[in-house]
Amino acid sequence: MNHQWRIAARPEGRVKESDFVWAEEPIPTLNDGQIRVRTVYLSLDPTNRIWMEPADSYLPALPLGAVMRGLTLGVVEESRNPAYQPGDAVQGFGGWQEVYSGDADGWTKLPQIPGVPLAAFFGSMGHIGFTAYFGVMDIGQPKPGETMVVSAAAGAVGSIAGQIGKIAGCRVVGITGSDEKCDWIKRELGFDEAINYRNEKVGEALARTCPNGIDIDFENVGGEIMDAVLGRLNLGARIALCGLISQYNATAPVPGPYNFSNLLMRRARLQGFLVLDYAARFGEAAARIVPWLLSGQLKYQIDMVEGLRSAPTALNRLFDGANQGKLLVRVSSEA
Amino acid sequence: MNHQWRIAARPEGRVKESDFVWAEEPIPTLNDGQIRVRTVYLSLDPTNRIWMEPADSYLPALPLGAVMRGLTLGVVEESRNPAYQPGDAVQGFGGWQEVYSGDADGWTKLPQIPGVPLAAFFGSMGHIGFTAYFGVMDIGQPKPGETMVVSAAAGAVGSIAGQIGKIAGCRVVGITGSDEKCDWIKRELGFDEAINYRNEKVGEALARTCPNGIDIDFENVGGEIMDAVLGRLNLGARIALCGLISQYNATAPVPGPYNFSNLLMRRARLQGFLVLDYAARFGEAAARIVPWLLSGQLKYQIDMVEGLRSAPTALNRLFDGANQGKLLVRVSSEA
Repeated sequence: MNHQWRIAARPEGRVKESDFVWAEEPIPTLNDGQIRVRTVYLSLDPTNRIWMEPADSYLPALPLGAVMRGLTLGVVEESRNPAYQPGDAVQGFGGWQEVYSGDADGWTKLPQIPGVPLAAFFGSMGHIGFTAYFGVMDIGQPKPGETMVVSAAAGAVGSIAGQIGKIAGCRVVGITGSDEKCDWIKRELGFDEAINYRNEKVGEALARTCPNGIDIDFENVGGEIMDAVLGRLNLGARIALCGLISQYNATAPVPGPYNFSNLLMRRARLQGFLVLDYAARFGEAAARIVPWLLSGQLKYQIDMVEGLRSAPTALNRLFDGANQGKLLVRVSSEA
Repeated sequence: MNHQWRIAARPEGRVKESDFVWAEEPIPTLNDGQIRVRTVYLSLDPTNRIWMEPADSYLPALPLGAVMRGLTLGVVEESRNPAYQPGDAVQGFGGWQEVYSGDADGWTKLPQIPGVPLAAFFGSMGHIGFTAYFGVMDIGQPKPGETMVVSAAAGAVGSIAGQIGKIAGCRVVGITGSDEKCDWIKRELGFDEAINYRNEKVGEALARTCPNGIDIDFENVGGEIMDAVLGRLNLGARIALCGLISQYNATAPVPGPYNFSNLLMRRARLQGFLVLDYAARFGEAAARIVPWLLSGQLKYQIDMVEGLRSAPTALNRLFDGANQGKLLVRVSSEA
C-alpha cells in the first residue's frame, strides 16, 4: 500500500493537520513510459502554502482530494521507461506520498557526484540552490563591495543566497528570528552582520549594520521587514523578490510596503522570480555551485523531520521560523 | 526688478498660495561665465510637489526662503559665457522667476528645428518626451501586439507614452479622469481604449479592455489605480514606475499596492526611473522623437496658464486632474 496526504480542506491562516487526510491506496501497475519512485526526501517550502489555495497561482490550483503537491528526491524502483533504471536517483513532483507511480514528465535524473549526498540536491542545489543563485547573480547583479541584505537568512534559500553574495564580493547582512540563527549565519556561513528581528527594530538595526545603504535586497519575507529594507535603498538598488512568507497565512488583504515610493525615488529595480523560469540555465548554476560545495565555500544545513506522517505539522515550522537551513521530511532511507 | 515665487512654508497636503511668497529683487550684474535668461515658459510637473518637502528627495531639499525650483524654457538676454549668445533659446532649472542670472551649469541650448515651436521642448521633448521615451522603450521593452496600460494618460508624460507605445506596435489602454480626456486620447492620440476612473471601477474596466492581460504598465499614479493594474499583470510584465501622483499630497504614510504579491506571482519587473538618469542618452531620444513629431505621428497639447503670478494655484491643476496635456505657465512672450 502507498500512504499519502491528500488535501481535505482549504486552510484558513495557518495550516492544520485536519486540512489534510491520511489516505492509502494500492500501488498501481505501470503503463508504458511510466516509472515508480520510492520517496526518500520530501521538500517542505513556504510555497507549499500557496499551492493549497483554491485559486491558480504560478501553478494550477490543486482540487480538494488530490495528493498534496511536493518536490521529492527518490529512487526509481521500477521502470517502463527506457531513460530510467531501477536504482536511479531522481527529483520531481512526487507529492506527499511514499511512492509515486506515473509518467516521467518533469522528473530529472540526478548525477552521482562523489562527496555530494542525495540530500544536498535539496540543501544547496536543485530548486533551493538555483533560486539563490539566479536571484543573487542574475537579478542582484552584485558588484564587489556592495551591501546585500537577505531576509529569512537562516532559511533554506536565504542561507545559500547570503553565501553566494559573499562569494560575489558583497558585504552581506542577514535578518533572522533568533540569536542562535544569527550566530550560525555569522560564524558558520560567513555573513558580515546578522539582525535578530525579534530583539531589535529592523530599521535601526539596518542603519547600524548598513551605514552605506543597501544595494541588493534578497527578499524572502515582505511586510515590515521588507519595508525597513526599502527605507535604506541606495540609488539603483536591485530587489530580488523571491518570497513573501510573512503574508502566505494572511486571511485578509495585505497592503504593500509603505516605502513603496522609495522604488521610484531611488530608481530601484524589483524583479519577482521563480526558479522554474530558469530551467534552461540549471546546468550553468550547477556548474558554479558544485565546486563551491566541494571546496567548502558553500555550506548548507538540513533540518530533518522523520516520517511522512509529520509533514503537515512540520510545514508550520517554516512559518514559525523554527527551521534552520533546509526543512526536509525523511520518508524512507537513502539506501 | 525680477519677480519670484519663494517657498514660505512646507505644504500640508495640497499646495496653498500662502506656502509661497511673491518677492522681488534687483537684477544682479553677471560675473564671468554667467548668463542671464528671460523666462518664457515655466514647466509645472507633479514632482514640483516633492521638491517642496523638507527632506531631500532625488534632488536636495530647498530651504525655506529659496526661489522655488522649476524647469524653464527661456531666451538668453545677456551672456558672459562664450558658449551662449543673446537670443539663444535655452532650457534649465531657471526657477519660478522672471529672470535667471547665474552660472550656466545645467543649462542646455536648444536647437532651432523648423516646424518645432519652443513650447514643444516641454510638450513632447525635453524632460516630458524623454521620460515617456525611456520609460516605454527602455523599461517597457514593448513587443508588437502586447498590451500596455498608461495611467494619467491625458497628462503630459502619459499622453506621449501612450503614443510611443502605439508606435512600438502595442495595444494601448489609457486611464484618465474625464470623458473628455478619454475622447481626446482615443480620437486624437490613437489610444485603443480609454477608461474614465471616475465613472467605472478600474478593475472591471481593465477586465473589459485588456482581455489578454497587461504586459506593460506605464505608471504615473499609484494607489487604487495601480493596484487594479497589478491585478491583471501577465507573466513577465514590466512596470515603468514614473510617478505616484496619488500620494504626493498625502499627510500620513501610504501603504503600497495590495496586489504587491502579484509582482512575485507574475514574475514582473518593476523599475523606478527619473529622466535625469538618462541624460547621456537624450540625443538618442531626440533623434527618434523629432521625426515622429514632424510627421504628425506624435501629437502633444499644451495647457497654458498665463502669468507667473498664477503658478502656485495652477500647480494644483495637476493634482485635480484638471490639465489636459502639458501644463505650462507663460511668463513672457516667445518673441
